[in-house]
Amino acid sequence: MSGKRTTIGVFDSGFGGLTVLRALLPRIPGAHYIYVGDTARLPYGAKSKETIARYAVESARFLEERGAEFLVIACNTASALALDEIRSAVKVPVVGVIEPGARAAFHALGSRFSTAPPEPDVLVLATDATVQSHAYRKECDALGLRATEVACPLLVPLVEEGWVDHNVTREVLRIYLEGALRQSSPQAVLLGCTHYPLIAPEIERALRDLGCEAPVIDSAEATATAVSTALGVGAQTTDAKATFECFATDSVEKFQRLGSLFLGRTIDDVRHLNLGG
Amino acid sequence: MSGKRTTIGVFDSGFGGLTVLRALLPRIPGAHYIYVGDTARLPYGAKSKETIARYAVESARFLEERGAEFLVIACNTASALALDEIRSAVKVPVVGVIEPGARAAFHALGSRFSTAPPEPDVLVLATDATVQSHAYRKECDALGLRATEVACPLLVPLVEEGWVDHNVTREVLRIYLEGALRQSSPQAVLLGCTHYPLIAPEIERALRDLGCEAPVIDSAEATATAVSTALGVGAQTTDAKATFECFATDSVEKFQRLGSLFLGRTIDDVRHLNLGG
Repeated sequence: MSGKRTTIGVFDSGFGGLTVLRALLPRIPGAHYIYVGDTARLPYGAKSKETIARYAVESARFLEERGAEFLVIACNTASALALDEIRSAVKVPVVGVIEPGARAAFHALGSRFSTAPPEPDVLVLATDATVQSHAYRKECDALGLRATEVACPLLVPLVEEGWVDHNVTREVLRIYLEGALRQSSPQAVLLGCTHYPLIAPEIERALRDLGCEAPVIDSAEATATAVSTALGVGAQTTDAKATFECFATDSVEKFQRLGSLFLGRTIDDVRHLNLGG
Repeated sequence: MSGKRTTIGVFDSGFGGLTVLRALLPRIPGAHYIYVGDTARLPYGAKSKETIARYAVESARFLEERGAEFLVIACNTASALALDEIRSAVKVPVVGVIEPGARAAFHALGSRFSTAPPEPDVLVLATDATVQSHAYRKECDALGLRATEVACPLLVPLVEEGWVDHNVTREVLRIYLEGALRQSSPQAVLLGCTHYPLIAPEIERALRDLGCEAPVIDSAEATATAVSTALGVGAQTTDAKATFECFATDSVEKFQRLGSLFLGRTIDDVRHLNLGG
């Protein structure tokens, strides 16, 4: 990447994908990033495959037209339901969050991994649409892992309400995880939604309280690692500083306010984007 | 309405407006209803005025083109933010849910009403966007009532999760209402979101537990009354049977399944509608 500055497009239905951008910035600091949050049509999590694919393709095309040489679909629902459609619609390489997440679970198992039955069990927490797609199950299958996918529809609204350290969130987690651990005795727990890293400490605590010591894996981090590998970027010694610009299909002001929480830094450059929907 | 069958268009961002349709069916049984749920783009509650107006106008135009002679905007957020835009975009009469709700609060106060200060206080529970629009405050002002508007963003996801009789919903209500009653000593509580009637018993119980005996007013019921008045329909003695058809911008199957809970009866006739967004 010496000399030339790579432009990386990052797409999510809203703010959650900013946790992926947050993981990318220190890993590939020499790049320029364009982020699209389709906030006018969020959340994708409860919508149909056809609708999600149509929306995601519109954003992917916008990013390609704007110069992105590499696309990161930082949205679990769109990665689960529309990755093939996006790849068909654009010419640049496209990475989703599902495969890197499943691979990270595989590596986390380390010496606990065995190909002999019973296969190691990975508990995947995600939105309704991601669970119903069974995208994580398919990726885990291919790696010889068994996935138990559990929908946690209230976690996104709780994070967006700002209740990240709150007794209601703890109680909701207890209910979801108690149900999940009746179906699974996981050796790894995979956060299959980009909102969940914001409550990762609470998820870890709730698992421990229920007697589960499995490591919790954040697919945002795993995806950033996969992108830097795909781009051939090693440990960064560059003194370049990543630049980024953001587009939101709904309120720019709200994107700046909420988005800053997810990105962990101030977002100044947000423009409104009309995708016609 | 003898002889001619009036066609009434009912619009909501999703399923909640079906509580308004549910209230309309027995009141105006001689009518044919067309319901549009813009489920591909729900929820509207956290989106900007511009986006909501654009979406709502598309649905209103579709209903008019399909033969609706009267439109009911059965969505608090769209009523709050886009009623003027909708009225400008179509030729038929349009009724929203805000004014009927405020009027019902006024009537509920009955003998407790006094024009002398302090004005009676109405507590309005609603989504973020409805609260920020201050649409209820404006309507209440015009009636000599003071409105305290409180956003309850988690209630819609809780209802959609089916947790209508659940300790988490009770705890969330306690938190929201405890905060609300620190700002207000209401003589009436207005449900400013069409999802809330499904948890009206829990809202009433939570208010009682906090020492508030104010009546709880459902703007879905109030709106149905306003529509029958506007159409000059008295107490129905007709033996006509209301007919209805539904359109959803997202999954038809999901609309049938979730919608039936809101309407309180089976929904067979749902078609997919592409509004291009």
